[in-house]
Amino acid sequence: MNSIIKLFGIKYPIIQGGMVWVSGNKLVSQVSENGGLGVLGAGSMYPKVLAEHIIKCKKATDKPFGVNIPLMYPDIDELMAIIMEHKVAVVFTSAGSPNLWTAKLQAVGIKVVHVVSSVKFALKAQAAGVDAVVAEGFEAGGHNGREESTTMTLIPMVKKALDIPVLAAGGIATGRSMLAAMALGADGVQIGSRFVMSKESSAHINFKDYILNSTEGDTVLTIKELAPVRMMRNAFYKQIEELYSNNASAQQLKDLLGRGRAKKGMFLGDMTEGELEIGQVAGLIDSVMSVKDIMQEIVSEYNQAKTTMMDL
Amino acid sequence: MNSIIKLFGIKYPIIQGGMVWVSGNKLVSQVSENGGLGVLGAGSMYPKVLAEHIIKCKKATDKPFGVNIPLMYPDIDELMAIIMEHKVAVVFTSAGSPNLWTAKLQAVGIKVVHVVSSVKFALKAQAAGVDAVVAEGFEAGGHNGREESTTMTLIPMVKKALDIPVLAAGGIATGRSMLAAMALGADGVQIGSRFVMSKESSAHINFKDYILNSTEGDTVLTIKELAPVRMMRNAFYKQIEELYSNNASAQQLKDLLGRGRAKKGMFLGDMTEGELEIGQVAGLIDSVMSVKDIMQEIVSEYNQAKTTMMDL
Repeated sequence: MNSIIKLFGIKYPIIQGGMVWVSGNKLVSQVSENGGLGVLGAGSMYPKVLAEHIIKCKKATDKPFGVNIPLMYPDIDELMAIIMEHKVAVVFTSAGSPNLWTAKLQAVGIKVVHVVSSVKFALKAQAAGVDAVVAEGFEAGGHNGREESTTMTLIPMVKKALDIPVLAAGGIATGRSMLAAMALGADGVQIGSRFVMSKESSAHINFKDYILNSTEGDTVLTIKELAPVRMMRNAFYKQIEELYSNNASAQQLKDLLGRGRAKKGMFLGDMTEGELEIGQVAGLIDSVMSVKDIMQEIVSEYNQAKTTMMDL
Repeated sequence: MNSIIKLFGIKYPIIQGGMVWVSGNKLVSQVSENGGLGVLGAGSMYPKVLAEHIIKCKKATDKPFGVNIPLMYPDIDELMAIIMEHKVAVVFTSAGSPNLWTAKLQAVGIKVVHVVSSVKFALKAQAAGVDAVVAEGFEAGGHNGREESTTMTLIPMVKKALDIPVLAAGGIATGRSMLAAMALGADGVQIGSRFVMSKESSAHINFKDYILNSTEGDTVLTIKELAPVRMMRNAFYKQIEELYSNNASAQQLKDLLGRGRAKKGMFLGDMTEGELEIGQVAGLIDSVMSVKDIMQEIVSEYNQAKTTMMDL
């Protein structure tokens, strides 16, 4: 049996990335209802908001779901207390050391998955005792690694180095790309951008329309000195670029980034001043569908593509 | 029947990338003898040298092989005359418009493949009448595109846009990664770095040893203003980086690059002052094998991985 299906008790080894501002209870419960693992994006939620989303998810589905939480978050203690109180099935941690929280979460029966972008951090996560890792390639949206390893090269390297299950992320939006990730050795996939483009995601309609009209080369990995992030090359990005070409200081860059840029863009729909985090695969996505239809399309395309692969 | 096998008259849809300084007649004839398509790297050959390599290849194998040639090359007319005189089976063109040469080559029975890194240029190549394209992802070694599209996102986009066969390149070194590329929709693969690390390649032993000891994050896509190239982060690269951090002009950069840097590193073995072009997948390659063993390993790993893919 597939190790991810077994670990999470789900039907398909398809995890929905717990992205800030777009991954609320509607998206999450629908992914879980349709056989994947939905994941709330706690990175954009106050503790009270997270609790509400968890409660709504539990009402909407009796299937397991998860929460993604950046470990350097100021409210981390309070958020973790809520997660443990509600015994959420799986926690995805990122941006910090998994040493502090892994055993505590596991002690109350919660599975822990850490998100990494290199073999080095994958090995550290395994040593910290996590149940699995998400290995995220250069093409993935949002926060990313400094090594710039793409999914095609990262997954085989991580898989070779680790004994625990590996979820592939970055550039996966269809059944064919899921099949490719599994061929590389992944035990399952984490899909982000494609679920941003679902009817149930809380991404603003302006953001969805913007992605529908985007093409190759429209995203870029930037802010590499502070913390690399992949985003759309919109007007806000051009301001970042201008600071760079004027040799701005890290502080000037921080001032421009400010607070609430991702909310402004992705949730409130300001395509000019907002930060639009999305993966490179945005250029390939040309529809907004229901989660149910997305899941069915991915599964049937995967199975279909599998049968048509030639022998050598 | 697979379109690449049919187009080139070969056993496996595996093309060896025609890389400068490493792809001479020994490597090329062995790849063709073992069922793939070997490709001479004319980008580092004077016309007379190319003629010698073609003649030696023909003596070593009666199977088809190709020549890779950058179209902005100064000796282009003379090189093309030699290729046409010897009726080489396939020409791989890059770095320039395929409009000028495609029909001329095809008129004497030569197949033409153009190397691209974006859908935009893939469509132009198709319009120019080429027989196929190589779509090369961000992770590939040597010259690359500005869009930074990875193999995982580029192949499905190019495949969706084109009617002619698509070869995937970038990050492919094993049977599993070949299977992944085919799952993405590629009709075949072009493999570079793995063949640099063959016994028959003319890469200097120092370069091969350097790659054996390399790991994730050791290559970087740089010189983005002039023409993006992926290379090892060695001492020569650090000089480039230093120029950048001092806001050097394009001319200063050109002066540093100079001439013969790739030869110095890859062919003559100067790991300090030479330019070491190689793909990101270098971090995964930990052996130098014969072409025959590499081909057999790729084919058997591909077939093996294919049988173990789960159904959803």
